[in-house]
Amino acid sequence: MHGAPLTRDGDLVLLLDAKNKPFTFRLQAGQELQTHRGVVRHNDLTGIPWGSRVASHLGQTFYLLSPSLHDLLLYLPRQSQIVFPKEVGYLLLRLSVGPGARVIEAGTGSGAMTLALAWAVGPEGHVYSYDRRSDMQALAGRNLARVGLESRVTFQQASIEDGFGETDVDALFLDVPDPHLALPQVRRALRPGSPFGAILPTVNQISVLLAAMEANEFAFPEVCEILLRFYKTVPQRLRPLDRMVAHTGYLVFARPLAAGAGPPSAEDWAEAEPV
Amino acid sequence: MHGAPLTRDGDLVLLLDAKNKPFTFRLQAGQELQTHRGVVRHNDLTGIPWGSRVASHLGQTFYLLSPSLHDLLLYLPRQSQIVFPKEVGYLLLRLSVGPGARVIEAGTGSGAMTLALAWAVGPEGHVYSYDRRSDMQALAGRNLARVGLESRVTFQQASIEDGFGETDVDALFLDVPDPHLALPQVRRALRPGSPFGAILPTVNQISVLLAAMEANEFAFPEVCEILLRFYKTVPQRLRPLDRMVAHTGYLVFARPLAAGAGPPSAEDWAEAEPV
Amino acid sequence: MHGAPLTRDGDLVLLLDAKNKPFTFRLQAGQELQTHRGVVRHNDLTGIPWGSRVASHLGQTFYLLSPSLHDLLLYLPRQSQIVFPKEVGYLLLRLSVGPGARVIEAGTGSGAMTLALAWAVGPEGHVYSYDRRSDMQALAGRNLARVGLESRVTFQQASIEDGFGETDVDALFLDVPDPHLALPQVRRALRPGSPFGAILPTVNQISVLLAAMEANEFAFPEVCEILLRFYKTVPQRLRPLDRMVAHTGYLVFARPLAAGAGPPSAEDWAEAEPV
Amino acid sequence: MHGAPLTRDGDLVLLLDAKNKPFTFRLQAGQELQTHRGVVRHNDLTGIPWGSRVASHLGQTFYLLSPSLHDLLLYLPRQSQIVFPKEVGYLLLRLSVGPGARVIEAGTGSGAMTLALAWAVGPEGHVYSYDRRSDMQALAGRNLARVGLESRVTFQQASIEDGFGETDVDALFLDVPDPHLALPQVRRALRPGSPFGAILPTVNQISVLLAAMEANEFAFPEVCEILLRFYKTVPQRLRPLDRMVAHTGYLVFARPLAAGAGPPSAEDWAEAEPV
Repeated sequence: MHGAPLTRDGDLVLLLDAKNKPFTFRLQAGQELQTHRGVVRHNDLTGIPWGSRVASHLGQTFYLLSPSLHDLLLYLPRQSQIVFPKEVGYLLLRLSVGPGARVIEAGTGSGAMTLALAWAVGPEGHVYSYDRRSDMQALAGRNLARVGLESRVTFQQASIEDGFGETDVDALFLDVPDPHLALPQVRRALRPGSPFGAILPTVNQISVLLAAMEANEFAFPEVCEILLRFYKTVPQRLRPLDRMVAHTGYLVFARPLAAGAGPPSAEDWAEAEPV
Repeated sequence: MHGAPLTRDGDLVLLLDAKNKPFTFRLQAGQELQTHRGVVRHNDLTGIPWGSRVASHLGQTFYLLSPSLHDLLLYLPRQSQIVFPKEVGYLLLRLSVGPGARVIEAGTGSGAMTLALAWAVGPEGHVYSYDRRSDMQALAGRNLARVGLESRVTFQQASIEDGFGETDVDALFLDVPDPHLALPQVRRALRPGSPFGAILPTVNQISVLLAAMEANEFAFPEVCEILLRFYKTVPQRLRPLDRMVAHTGYLVFARPLAAGAGPPSAEDWAEAEPV
Repeated sequence: MHGAPLTRDGDLVLLLDAKNKPFTFRLQAGQELQTHRGVVRHNDLTGIPWGSRVASHLGQTFYLLSPSLHDLLLYLPRQSQIVFPKEVGYLLLRLSVGPGARVIEAGTGSGAMTLALAWAVGPEGHVYSYDRRSDMQALAGRNLARVGLESRVTFQQASIEDGFGETDVDALFLDVPDPHLALPQVRRALRPGSPFGAILPTVNQISVLLAAMEANEFAFPEVCEILLRFYKTVPQRLRPLDRMVAHTGYLVFARPLAAGAGPPSAEDWAEAEPV
Repeated sequence: MHGAPLTRDGDLVLLLDAKNKPFTFRLQAGQELQTHRGVVRHNDLTGIPWGSRVASHLGQTFYLLSPSLHDLLLYLPRQSQIVFPKEVGYLLLRLSVGPGARVIEAGTGSGAMTLALAWAVGPEGHVYSYDRRSDMQALAGRNLARVGLESRVTFQQASIEDGFGETDVDALFLDVPDPHLALPQVRRALRPGSPFGAILPTVNQISVLLAAMEANEFAFPEVCEILLRFYKTVPQRLRPLDRMVAHTGYLVFARPLAAGAGPPSAEDWAEAEPV
């Protein structure tokens, strides 16, 4: 068996302490990480196997890992509520955001969904991220640069009610308070038949969006919510954790059709088999 | 505004009838699709805008769409229970399977997870899929070829207890009855510190796997389950569907560490903050 | 140890076949029960221990049990959607319907909730059940008579918009499409400070009822929903059943206050600790 | 309309502040309630309508209510984890604990379930509550006396492995770590065919109990769990609360049969229709 791969200067790393507290950063010769469990020198983390256990100057244990997309989302510096991993994974799948895709999202917020989209589209794809607030886009930009994905994203500081500058994109996702106001604009930007998605915190917003989707002839509406429940990982006393997240947002999906192609009647759709 | 993109001979299409019944196939000049709502000629579906409404020879309505990954999974020809989209999305995220990744999975089964992995790793990544049964791998192979992803997958007809032929892969996923028997083999194939995942239907299997992970010094164990609830999409009478899937499987995650790097104590981990 | 208690002529019994199919009836000398697994003679079920196994004339197995309230609700003859046991138990508790209570409900429907209320208030309590439809009340009356609880219920064939004939009742429960229209009438019938409850299928109805409760100075609003998940009872392969009920209705609770006693402000209540 | 009913000296009352903080006590002439929102004099609470708004000496608002069973459970003084209302309601229903019933429970704990059982059986029923710990039974005794239900309960300070002193009880409920050890004793105390229930925190305990029930010929096993989700009660921004209780315990039910009456085969039961 060949030797284990070693960390190198410049690598993005995740350092976890023994109680799962995370630190994400790039290795830089000569730098130090300050924690309340002691100081860790970057030089001590460089040129050693991934998955190593290291010690701070106080002798406290840390683990040196390569951050997954999940880690990057969980530990993202933020100034706003972000889309949770339980929703991000399903959204990528449901909106079919994969290598090479061109995708629009709004709003940018702290950039969690932006980062996930940029990660998933790969170097051949691209993300167009809209937000009215320059401060949020600056934060999102820093969050992307930190993980080296900034070149895959174009930030547009603009209101989506003014429309999108792109056409024929493969998917379009809205995390804004009033997505129903932008459906004609969505239709012009998104390739007909391709997936549109939105996340909304309240049921009232769902009703408004569903009515607007019907009025704008978006077909195949779906509404769902995802619950994720964690367990205590004790083999002989296995049980769910005491508490869980009860709500982040409802997910709404639909597809705009080609001009003139009316969607199925509400009656037909009400009888459709759930997916 | 420029013209809408048109379908071309050879395109993979999804044809949905008005009640959401799906047909996935490639456009081939001269071919016909037989449905119980009438015959649809491929020639009538070619060279027209995506998102178009078309009619069968009986005048029944169909919609011409580009299949999303979600569609491909939902409508996959299968001979076994497959991983559900609600789990697939979270698994891709949690295992950090994105463009360029090298990933191992077992067992292949009908190839749903194989397809999702192949889709997510893009042309630069690769999937190694293990299964003892040649018939399942043949089915999975057909399912991949149907969507043009077969070149991204290497099928290995072998028992995972004999070990994996690859090393330093970025992620490893097991959907087999006894994953606990293969943890030493997992450790040899997976890059230290990188994500290992498994799906298991029963709580008894979780207990066994957790104990084996502890014995094999896999760190940072997590167990969770995902519930997905759909709503009736009637704006003025919005409510969940009457019934839902209550269980497909539990997800278990962990990371093998570098040789000699012992994981956090069970006591420390029991007190760790849930992610 | 003394002998086991024996069944007697006139007893209400539950007969379950080996696959849990239920038959509820009173033992009557000379009668026979016809099932697709054979005929069972009442005489063979009388004077034997509760919990006995008996056989039909075809040799098929049945079990002789005393029906619980849960059984009576599950197997109630019905012509309408009934409140499910998972909600009934919580409603009885939340509305504090116990021995001696005087309770109003509307609508009667098939009488499932009526039966549960009559059962819980005991011989010293009483239930007033309103419904416009005489056919439903006739069915509910038969369902109550079948289990001997008819003397605890007064049926009122009337619209609740015309008001209730009782005052100072201990609890009031509405299972009607438009409960918001009857809040002034509820206030006149229900002792101030006592629990009001409603069940509603859609989120839109909740919003309307909450607004009406605010306008009618009902204090301490609460909205919740209950999910009940069953498991396969195989000790070594323990797991949830594949499917479950995803929705029956949302429960809404509040308390009308004494005349002139304004409720807490919406701001205070929004910050209140959940119970 | 007649006058509203008035509170009287000796009444059990619930005083809620504007943010839902509760105080439960009996009105006693001359007494005072000290709160961090000021002092409330019992005399000011006596002889006024139920549902009144009153003020502390600091002018802070309080509401004078009659406590429901739900309130009594929520606000019970406790030294141990108690059964939650979401489980209590379902247990009463599922175990068919109503007016006149004779019921056994173990362990007593802080007396929450004891209180609910005593409340539900009414003056004609009785509860036998077992616990090894005298301190817990003393606490439970005080909790029952506080609400005037102490005469309905007999406390037995004993281990249930030594058996129960009662026979032919109508229902039996265990909230103890090892219920599987007491099944023969349960069989001797519980009327054949009547409901047995248990609550257990871990899945491992369920497996053990299910196997023991099979060995002891307890029929009709069921395992379930209840999730209760609350909503923010804002009509125009209706949505679930952010967090919820993810787990308290699993509920297990079964019925011991008459001596010699073997239960359905595991195969038959595995195919039985869920209730």
